[in-house]
Amino acid sequence: MSDKPLRVGLAGLGTVGAGLVKLLADNAELVSRRANRPIVITAVSARDRTRDRGVDLSGFGWEDNAVDLAARDDVDTVVELIGGADGPALALARSALGAGKGFVTANKAMLAHHGMELAALAESTNAPLKFEAAVAGGIPVIKGMRDGLSGNRVQAVYGILNGTCNFILTAMERDGKPFADVLKEAQALGYAEADPTFDIDGIDAAHKLSILSSLAFGTKINFKGVSTCGIRSVAPADIDYASVLGYRIRLIGMARQEDGGLFQRVHPCLVPVNHPLAHVTDSLNAVVAEGNYVGRLLFQGRGAGEGPTASAVAADLVDVARGEFGPAFAMPAGSLSDVPAADPASHVGRYYIRLTVVDRPGVLAELTAILRDLSVSVESLIQRGGAPDGAVYFVLTTHAGPQQAVTEALARISALDSVTTEPVMMHILDF
Amino acid sequence: MSDKPLRVGLAGLGTVGAGLVKLLADNAELVSRRANRPIVITAVSARDRTRDRGVDLSGFGWEDNAVDLAARDDVDTVVELIGGADGPALALARSALGAGKGFVTANKAMLAHHGMELAALAESTNAPLKFEAAVAGGIPVIKGMRDGLSGNRVQAVYGILNGTCNFILTAMERDGKPFADVLKEAQALGYAEADPTFDIDGIDAAHKLSILSSLAFGTKINFKGVSTCGIRSVAPADIDYASVLGYRIRLIGMARQEDGGLFQRVHPCLVPVNHPLAHVTDSLNAVVAEGNYVGRLLFQGRGAGEGPTASAVAADLVDVARGEFGPAFAMPAGSLSDVPAADPASHVGRYYIRLTVVDRPGVLAELTAILRDLSVSVESLIQRGGAPDGAVYFVLTTHAGPQQAVTEALARISALDSVTTEPVMMHILDF
Repeated sequence: MSDKPLRVGLAGLGTVGAGLVKLLADNAELVSRRANRPIVITAVSARDRTRDRGVDLSGFGWEDNAVDLAARDDVDTVVELIGGADGPALALARSALGAGKGFVTANKAMLAHHGMELAALAESTNAPLKFEAAVAGGIPVIKGMRDGLSGNRVQAVYGILNGTCNFILTAMERDGKPFADVLKEAQALGYAEADPTFDIDGIDAAHKLSILSSLAFGTKINFKGVSTCGIRSVAPADIDYASVLGYRIRLIGMARQEDGGLFQRVHPCLVPVNHPLAHVTDSLNAVVAEGNYVGRLLFQGRGAGEGPTASAVAADLVDVARGEFGPAFAMPAGSLSDVPAADPASHVGRYYIRLTVVDRPGVLAELTAILRDLSVSVESLIQRGGAPDGAVYFVLTTHAGPQQAVTEALARISALDSVTTEPVMMHILDF
Repeated sequence: MSDKPLRVGLAGLGTVGAGLVKLLADNAELVSRRANRPIVITAVSARDRTRDRGVDLSGFGWEDNAVDLAARDDVDTVVELIGGADGPALALARSALGAGKGFVTANKAMLAHHGMELAALAESTNAPLKFEAAVAGGIPVIKGMRDGLSGNRVQAVYGILNGTCNFILTAMERDGKPFADVLKEAQALGYAEADPTFDIDGIDAAHKLSILSSLAFGTKINFKGVSTCGIRSVAPADIDYASVLGYRIRLIGMARQEDGGLFQRVHPCLVPVNHPLAHVTDSLNAVVAEGNYVGRLLFQGRGAGEGPTASAVAADLVDVARGEFGPAFAMPAGSLSDVPAADPASHVGRYYIRLTVVDRPGVLAELTAILRDLSVSVESLIQRGGAPDGAVYFVLTTHAGPQQAVTEALARISALDSVTTEPVMMHILDF
């Protein structure tokens, strides 16, 4: 074993930062055998030096300004757990990589927005840039995509990328409660933030999906190209009807290379009950990758939290300590191709639609005429009472067809007097 | 991109070898971008030069003797797909690694028996030794254990490591047919070999488990320490009773560090229906690893076959081409610890027992007295007719206790006149 340690400067001492401090102490002996040298934290930075985090910081140097960690002589690699797409996190990344120091981060927002710049910078100084913790927490899916599937043309990558949404959807499924009630419970339990926007509106999952896409397809990150919709509009009625039709509802991030370009979407989806993702419950994450030689691979585990996220950061540090690293996005940034986003309207898929209509003769004929006129082919149909104010629910699933036709049909349907609320439309996972 | 290709000598042109030739042609552009240089086969060796394998070999050099591949000037890395623990595969490994050339293999038997020698040899010449394809086919579980979990003290690793056995067990479950009939079907479909011993007696799974254990725990490979039992004795009655009790039967390889040493076992197991491994059907493989920080991780996919195995070999070649490799078993061979095998008898676990007894008064009292005397604590019990010759089945599951007590109880029970056939005992997965 080398006696030259890898010296780490740690920026951010929240849950994950404190978890990393604990992990490197608890597992020091094993980690140093695997890294073939010790991995030691030498300096830290956080907003408040005095807060009790349950870990002893007395042996570490301190910087009030995180960016100053990169300039320290006793820091070889910086771990960034501050968060935020810009600001100090980005300044620190540029500073560390610019100085040829390693940079390990859990910051999916920063990578989604600035990943290509940072990858090119890391290559120019031959510095490691690692981000296993940025996607799916403890599940080694970045390494899985970058290293495990490197022999494959990946046809699709998709999965459950946000534990908060999965916790809420599976709690709604289990308890039959509406979204707003379950969100409050999730906040009380610490599974959702006080401001849950990034999670429940799908933005966090979209950040992660854009990173996975790049690794899967050898394309530049295109976060803006992710069509994103969160779970606020999912109602208990949808969960019930999905169940009757043989599906579970999950927030799915999915990406595929299609003829028209790169299809990337985060959307609540109906997942067939016999698909592995239908069995992913609570705050678990899971990622499926389909390669032209390997077939379908599933990675499942805990996607957030102190232990799993610290585990992912530590694994990256071991890679750095071993010297086993190369281009961050599997190939040199200059080799990543620039594929346009596919037009979501032209996507061919299957859809679930729920309408609330007044209970009077002729409504069914009106609706089905519109579907016929737009060539939307109905696979199954349920009409059932029980909607508020004596209305009836009209639920259908379609055969595969262009999304544009469904969208246009829903626009016409919305305009009908007999339709009392905004139609609900979800994708059916047919990957 | 470097224009210096990685030049591969391929030994063995069976299904997987031919698959690798196809993959490196089909996916050449993506693979070379990811490897940052082309990966090209320059020479091959197989038993029969003339057989049609559906791939064009005319551009490759030929060696009648596989070992000679290692000495060729136009070979940087050897891929070994010959198989067999010793013989030409081992000679080729020693020759390639001894010459400082890369060695990529799918040969679990050779690694189980000679992995430590080969790892030490690879380190001495600074040559890459890679074997993703040796365990769980296309699932990147070697990389997952070596690189993804490197920050964790792994508490347990276990899974479905043999697709043939899983195909047979899940076909028995689905069709209610006995083992021998399903084995014949599996052979006809190509899911089982003409001589299926290595698969159905658990030896193949034991080879794989011994490799996973080493990576998980930082211990030397101890194949002889794996307690192994195959699936020949699993009867449709067991599958039925397991189902009634809330379990599925799977051949599970499992390893755990226990107080008494390293516990490694391949055995048919009752898996609770709510455990992810209960949903792994057909010839799929799945591996679960539990780490002290990451929690429970699941990797699932295709564990054998042309495409998945070629995918794993190709991923190793990309690692070699990138120069991203280090000690084969996650740490230098000299750092791997030498942990004794735990005494299987002292293992504390839960057990399933099925007895066939004559239907007469007093038998139940005899049996339960023996269990009481040996302090075997019964969790559930079913007595039901339907066994051959008017006998009854007596099925029970135990609470956790030492295996020794159960084994001793079964020895005493076997000696009873009222017990007409050898008792069946299986483990209940309680990881």
